[in-house]
Amino acid sequence: MSERGTLIVYSGPSGVGKGTLLQPYLSRHPEACLSVSVTTRAPRPGEVDGVHYWFITEERFAQLVDSDGLLEHACYSAHSYGTPRAQVEEQLAQGRDVILEIEVQGAMQIKRSFPDAVFVFILPPSLEELRRRLSGRGTEPPQVVEDRLAAALRELGFAKEYDYLIVNDDLERAGSRLEAVIAASKCRTANLLDYVERMVNCHEHA
Amino acid sequence: MSERGTLIVYSGPSGVGKGTLLQPYLSRHPEACLSVSVTTRAPRPGEVDGVHYWFITEERFAQLVDSDGLLEHACYSAHSYGTPRAQVEEQLAQGRDVILEIEVQGAMQIKRSFPDAVFVFILPPSLEELRRRLSGRGTEPPQVVEDRLAAALRELGFAKEYDYLIVNDDLERAGSRLEAVIAASKCRTANLLDYVERMVNCHEHA
Repeated sequence: MSERGTLIVYSGPSGVGKGTLLQPYLSRHPEACLSVSVTTRAPRPGEVDGVHYWFITEERFAQLVDSDGLLEHACYSAHSYGTPRAQVEEQLAQGRDVILEIEVQGAMQIKRSFPDAVFVFILPPSLEELRRRLSGRGTEPPQVVEDRLAAALRELGFAKEYDYLIVNDDLERAGSRLEAVIAASKCRTANLLDYVERMVNCHEHA
Repeated sequence: MSERGTLIVYSGPSGVGKGTLLQPYLSRHPEACLSVSVTTRAPRPGEVDGVHYWFITEERFAQLVDSDGLLEHACYSAHSYGTPRAQVEEQLAQGRDVILEIEVQGAMQIKRSFPDAVFVFILPPSLEELRRRLSGRGTEPPQVVEDRLAAALRELGFAKEYDYLIVNDDLERAGSRLEAVIAASKCRTANLLDYVERMVNCHEHA
């Protein structure tokens, strides 16, 4: 019933299939959009400024941090990443749902400032399967795969801080779960208490 | 991922359309069932024992209360109502979702003993609309309608204790919300923490 959009924090270990799971959702839901992060790292081949990331300098990043212009920021493999606040606030005010695909460190910062955001964490069906998916790309040496698996284990330690956990065992099934979780989040009691109060007060003053 | 079914507590004021909303859900979901309450009131025309209620004596009701055989019980219009524990536990153990359509007083009892049940409250689009629906049946004198409206206001005071609030403004839309809420409840973090822990421990002991 709220005019305001919902902020959806979306995390999960590398290789779990977050992007693949999200694409069909975004196609079906034009009212939802993916927030574009800022980063100080250089674009990889094929990455487009303003689409995959906003590529900015260290200096501009520091300015954004100082002016409280980032909802969250984190350092990852010696580069800085962050979520521009203005863009997110504007989309939410227009009634659009905003999805932040961020890692656990940033998610915990959002939790403090947006307690009514919906926190969704994507789980692999098993660690063996995650290892297969990380190796399956075939572009990384075994040590990198092991390092990513170790990182995944650390991230799994934060799963308990999220509202919903979705096992990505099958793309269609996991997609339905994502649909349900986002739709249900709009019915969470906190979102409708004003509505109930208006209804009851309206009667009292009638 | 859990083999056990989900307990769904389903409430809302008289006239809000709880039954009408639930029927299509039950038709589409053979894994879900509606718990049949026991009551000490006499059957109304057309009511079938074991379908609408289990009609029992005051003495049998007191025995069930004394032997902790009821998950919740409440007194309503001078008659006693309750939810038989054995039946619910058995269905949940078999992996079936069990829906308890009960009033707020009973729901609060369930909350204490089943904290991981899902609590769903159905809201009218407005009190005016609820009054219309209560009057629309045309079988009750105005004072009864006003009394029910007053009861509805008391029940709305408990809405904040539920997990999800569903506005029954349109049967199809409200039905989709109910679908989403029940599906999403299976992804709630508490239901999957064992799964995450097994995954992580399995790796540590590998």
